[in-house]
Amino acid sequence: MIDMLGRGDVIPLQKALELLDNVAVVIPEKERMPVEDICGRILAETITSAEDVPHFARSTMDGYALRAEDTFGVTETLPAYIKITNEVFMGKTPNFYIKHGEAAKIPTGGMLPDGTDAVLMFEHTQPFGEADIEVLKALAPGDNVIQAGQDIHKGAVLLHPGHKLRPQDMGALCAVGISETWVYKRPVVSIISTGDEIIPPGVPLNGAEVRDINSYNLSGLLLNNGAVPARKGIFRDDYDTIHDIVTEAVKTSQMVLITGGSSVGTLDMTARIIDSLGRPGVVFHGVAVKPGKPLIAGSVNGIPVFGLPGHPAAVTVSFEVFIKPVLRRLKGELADESSKDILRARLTSNIASQPARTDFIWIKVLNNGGELFAQPLLSKSGLISALVQADGLIKIPAEKRGLQKGDEVIVRLF
Amino acid sequence: MIDMLGRGDVIPLQKALELLDNVAVVIPEKERMPVEDICGRILAETITSAEDVPHFARSTMDGYALRAEDTFGVTETLPAYIKITNEVFMGKTPNFYIKHGEAAKIPTGGMLPDGTDAVLMFEHTQPFGEADIEVLKALAPGDNVIQAGQDIHKGAVLLHPGHKLRPQDMGALCAVGISETWVYKRPVVSIISTGDEIIPPGVPLNGAEVRDINSYNLSGLLLNNGAVPARKGIFRDDYDTIHDIVTEAVKTSQMVLITGGSSVGTLDMTARIIDSLGRPGVVFHGVAVKPGKPLIAGSVNGIPVFGLPGHPAAVTVSFEVFIKPVLRRLKGELADESSKDILRARLTSNIASQPARTDFIWIKVLNNGGELFAQPLLSKSGLISALVQADGLIKIPAEKRGLQKGDEVIVRLF
Repeated sequence: MIDMLGRGDVIPLQKALELLDNVAVVIPEKERMPVEDICGRILAETITSAEDVPHFARSTMDGYALRAEDTFGVTETLPAYIKITNEVFMGKTPNFYIKHGEAAKIPTGGMLPDGTDAVLMFEHTQPFGEADIEVLKALAPGDNVIQAGQDIHKGAVLLHPGHKLRPQDMGALCAVGISETWVYKRPVVSIISTGDEIIPPGVPLNGAEVRDINSYNLSGLLLNNGAVPARKGIFRDDYDTIHDIVTEAVKTSQMVLITGGSSVGTLDMTARIIDSLGRPGVVFHGVAVKPGKPLIAGSVNGIPVFGLPGHPAAVTVSFEVFIKPVLRRLKGELADESSKDILRARLTSNIASQPARTDFIWIKVLNNGGELFAQPLLSKSGLISALVQADGLIKIPAEKRGLQKGDEVIVRLF
Repeated sequence: MIDMLGRGDVIPLQKALELLDNVAVVIPEKERMPVEDICGRILAETITSAEDVPHFARSTMDGYALRAEDTFGVTETLPAYIKITNEVFMGKTPNFYIKHGEAAKIPTGGMLPDGTDAVLMFEHTQPFGEADIEVLKALAPGDNVIQAGQDIHKGAVLLHPGHKLRPQDMGALCAVGISETWVYKRPVVSIISTGDEIIPPGVPLNGAEVRDINSYNLSGLLLNNGAVPARKGIFRDDYDTIHDIVTEAVKTSQMVLITGGSSVGTLDMTARIIDSLGRPGVVFHGVAVKPGKPLIAGSVNGIPVFGLPGHPAAVTVSFEVFIKPVLRRLKGELADESSKDILRARLTSNIASQPARTDFIWIKVLNNGGELFAQPLLSKSGLISALVQADGLIKIPAEKRGLQKGDEVIVRLF
């Protein structure tokens, strides 16, 4: 479909995402890193345990290691009597054997001595004489014990390549004795601000100038999503100038984001530059979403290049909806974690929506005694103040004409 | 309440959180940072706009700037005719005046010339002769225009101290011309591993030794929550050794986490050391939660000190439930953002729970065609493999005896 200005195909959201999914990207490089530095990075190898964890049968309680069969049939009114013949210390291999009718004192985490198969908690005993205890509870073999390999078996696959490493994964790597691992290098993403009217934030405004907002917003979005932002600066709306900086950027980074005006002339120029630099060039120009309709997506020999509309609100939506899935592939991330960035809430008011267009609406989440409400922040697109108030976005699909107050919506947080 | 081993007061969850809330902490120091580096940091000043944003009336469309009254009553069948006398360029102040019956071509983002109050989209015009257009739609004053100050008024408070800075906030600071700002310094948190049996992850295991998991898991949790982890190393379970390192740590960091065995002796020693170093010393020792019951919380002259049980699962729960709220205060963060880290899901199976104890259960979140399910990962506490499979935690309150399959639960992600 061609829009009224002949701006090329304005395609539906789903079609745009499919086209992006099929754009080839360069496979990320790997680097070896110590475990303490991998939080949030993407694993680039399969982690197989070379050890049993734990590597010996351990007590999970402070108590007495013994043979469970010595306690069979025991009740509080019919106790058994056991002799304490030894003691297990943390980190020490017990060099003794426990016979029938005997037990060894053992701390939480201690190694079970030979001859024992269960641990009786202190709480279920009474002292009896000098070295004996009264056993008040029957145990089954394995009670209060973690067996060797019960947590992680030797040879078990613990983590797969493409997994985003969390704190507990760092712990798990340490548990199996791995102190460094292969992760994917973080992609460097160039940010190019264009526009004759754009000036940096720290400079006084003159006349019709406006400040560079988008390259800072994009820097933050990239940092939050595991990429390295490279702000290239602000460039004049001139074919040769922008051609030169984009040419350099596709050589020195793994993705290029060009943020500029929303006027047709500027966007067409960006599209021509993308087409001139390599294959396949522009993949789509214009999507049936609001905000963010004039988005340009392309690829230059494996380097994705996006031309973003100038409104800050459109920049954020374009990033969340279109750029993030491509960035995930550049990072080597396999699992789609996006289902976990969402929450369900009830709309506090009606929202109208135009059919055949996917609308993204800014939401403030209100927590009213544990029940979550989604308050739409309706405003002209491009207002940075609405973005500051917002907690996330909801989507109104193209086939809907709006949503009703009280409807349950899925809020994507950002 | 004293537990069966005389381990001191085992208090309910809510009481423990209240006690922690009342522990005095040192007010965080501030540092001045450029906007590009503040993502995730906590704002330490009030941000007031010294400017109107936008600072001139801007067009939100490509079109013609004119007087709305020249279009009153116009329809497609009863068009008006307007003469195009000039053009507005991006970043340039128009140095001309538009009279009745005239219009100037204007790009999206252009400054409205004097005399005009609305913008007519190209889509609602037809060319007519050399320099005239046919106007096909009536406009109201302000149509397709953002007024000066409509986004952010000069003097408006944009952000408050204690706010966690997000990408859109970075953009908003730039919008009002702020290129650097005061943020709170990130708290340095010492991590002290204790235990005669603990060895680093990269060293071969001997006998009853186990690897240091917790200090790496804690490092990751601290990094994910805006703190600077300082791993102090692994220390023997000896009063003087641990006393010395904790003494040093409370001088060089803003919080101290001691992770060690779960045996009564080790925990009592940690409690005695905290009591010996300053006021108020131990605040509580033992909480009615599972996992994590033996947790010790204290404060040494404004430096919070925690003694964590040795099980990795208990470490994560203790961090999420007890340490995070204290860390938030150390960071200077005011808003409780925790309501946004949650999602609602339906339990896939029954879970039993002991009354008068708050249980935290590891959950894997399953997304079945957009509906979220919470699969409990039931296992002995201390299994690192369950942590690796988990997406988050659910809480079973002390007054409940369990949850039923199909119940809606709130999953706290981590």
